[in-house]
Amino acid sequence: IKHSLNVEAQSYGCWFVVNRGRIWLNKAGQVPVGEYRELTLSAEPEQVCLLGQDNDVNAYLLINHDQITDDEHWVSPRELLSAGESIFELAARAVQVALFLQTHRFCGQCGSAMNLVNWELAMLCNKCGHRCYPRIAPCVLVGIFHNDKILLARSSRHRPGFYSILAGFVESAETLEQAAVREVKEEVGIDITNLRYVGSQPWPFPHSLMTGFIADYAGGDIVCQPQEIEEAGWYSLKELPQVPPIETLSGQIIAQIQQMTGK
Amino acid sequence: IKHSLNVEAQSYGCWFVVNRGRIWLNKAGQVPVGEYRELTLSAEPEQVCLLGQDNDVNAYLLINHDQITDDEHWVSPRELLSAGESIFELAARAVQVALFLQTHRFCGQCGSAMNLVNWELAMLCNKCGHRCYPRIAPCVLVGIFHNDKILLARSSRHRPGFYSILAGFVESAETLEQAAVREVKEEVGIDITNLRYVGSQPWPFPHSLMTGFIADYAGGDIVCQPQEIEEAGWYSLKELPQVPPIETLSGQIIAQIQQMTGK
Ligand SMILES: NC(=O)c1ccc[n+]([C@@H]2O[C@H](COP(=O)([O-])OP(=O)(O)OC[C@H]3O[C@@H](n4cnc5c(N)ncnc54)[C@H](O)[C@@H]3O)[C@@H](O)[C@H]2O)c1
Ligand SMILES: NC(=O)c1ccc[n+]([C@@H]2O[C@H](COP(=O)([O-])OP(=O)(O)OC[C@H]3O[C@@H](n4cnc5c(N)ncnc54)[C@H](O)[C@@H]3O)[C@@H](O)[C@H]2O)c1
Repeated sequence: IKHSLNVEAQSYGCWFVVNRGRIWLNKAGQVPVGEYRELTLSAEPEQVCLLGQDNDVNAYLLINHDQITDDEHWVSPRELLSAGESIFELAARAVQVALFLQTHRFCGQCGSAMNLVNWELAMLCNKCGHRCYPRIAPCVLVGIFHNDKILLARSSRHRPGFYSILAGFVESAETLEQAAVREVKEEVGIDITNLRYVGSQPWPFPHSLMTGFIADYAGGDIVCQPQEIEEAGWYSLKELPQVPPIETLSGQIIAQIQQMTGK
Repeated sequence: IKHSLNVEAQSYGCWFVVNRGRIWLNKAGQVPVGEYRELTLSAEPEQVCLLGQDNDVNAYLLINHDQITDDEHWVSPRELLSAGESIFELAARAVQVALFLQTHRFCGQCGSAMNLVNWELAMLCNKCGHRCYPRIAPCVLVGIFHNDKILLARSSRHRPGFYSILAGFVESAETLEQAAVREVKEEVGIDITNLRYVGSQPWPFPHSLMTGFIADYAGGDIVCQPQEIEEAGWYSLKELPQVPPIETLSGQIIAQIQQMTGK
């Protein structure tokens, strides 16, 4: 990622205009592609970064700290999940870089103003030397498997009828595997074993990195964590309730368990 | 982790006294275990947190922001790598929690003072609402395998004669697998394929979470990244140079590749 660029009226690119975690779409509901001047932004962007490329077209982040006036054209990157892997990944990078810059203006150690380093994406405090890189919060997802059934839960934040596998944040000084065992125990009271890694997925809400595992049930009765988990149980892989879509790592883990059991 | 505790003279525990990333050992070269009053600290600790347990003994973090006077008894958690998994893990947690508190006194977004949340390990800005959790920086390690040989490199930070597999930080909006492919390409110019996950390890220098992969060589000639990599090449698994110890995830990846090839 190159940052602090200048763009010209004729610069051609794919433009991720970001404001408070949301991305600006054009009238066709897409991330705009074209010359910079065609964007007709209401204000000059405060910062321009090169994010990467989509089909050989440079993708730029334009940061705008102003209030959003025109609400309907700003979307969460979640709405771009089905726009293709490359667009979702660039959108994820765009909101995360914007959030990094917005939340590292001041040094957490001494309170002085921080400055962008010019050869890497980092903020540096010239007063006390504290340096920060964009924050990434590793998380685990665990698909648990027992007698041709899968453990699904409904968290208090899910809409009625929607179920998913368990998720949680990794704590300092834990392995991914320890985090998975701890989260499952905390959320539904059961023990798991034989963890198998499935894959990983960046999840920009606001800056998670999901890692996925499949595990076998090892013992214990389901006891839901109060406040967090409303309901949890074993579901037949033949008749699943509403679960996350295949674009999400949780959807992919569920599909993989279905394949394993031939359902 | 319970934080902001009070300890009494008779409290019995395993005491991790931390100052600037270093841990205080007693005359026997061990993390002190016993009653609090036996510690005879030169100053009252500024903060006490419960870190977990070692053999049913509570492990506490005592934070001391004072200057270290007595240099010889303070060590990096690295020196505790061979003291057993449980002690290393608690030491890792101790230095990471201490660093979190030290580097989140001020809000990165608005510069105000932050406060410790009382029900979770987080710092909150009451002025702008910005909330921070302890930082974890996910990293990848890649053991590359080709014709019964392993790719080892010597970074410019390693001592002469010491070689290791490749490592690097995950960037925002990357998967672990994309980070592995990108880092290998950047550092030695080759392509890899068929990535297999090996495991993970917290690495408190200052707050990394290592994830390890084994990959097959897919093409390209070795070209070392200037400044970063001094030397890289294919080494026979029968005659390895000096490599990381088995307590590290890199050491474990190398051992696993040796086993795979029966060397
Ligand atoms: N991609 C997917 O398939 C998928 C599926 C499920 C969940 N997720 C994501 O996984 C993450 C965790 O899921 P959850 O259900 O536990 O989330 P959550 O957002 O409900 O978090 C639970 C609690 O953890 C704490 N928390 C928040 N950020 C933290 C951090 N960085 N470190 C430590 N603690 C933190 C907060 O107290 C929060 O209320 C969320 O980001 C969620 O969006 C992704
Ligand atoms: N446990 C193990 O077996 C093992 C083995 C090798 C390396 N490691 C660890 O892996 C990590 C990465 O290894 P490396 O050789 O690339 O390290 P490094 O410390 O040389 O880092 C390389 C560069 O990355 C940048 N950087 C530092 N922190 C960053 C962050 N959080 N996000 C993005 N960029 C960052 C800096 O410019 C730094 O100079 C280090 O923490 C290292 O100690 C662990």
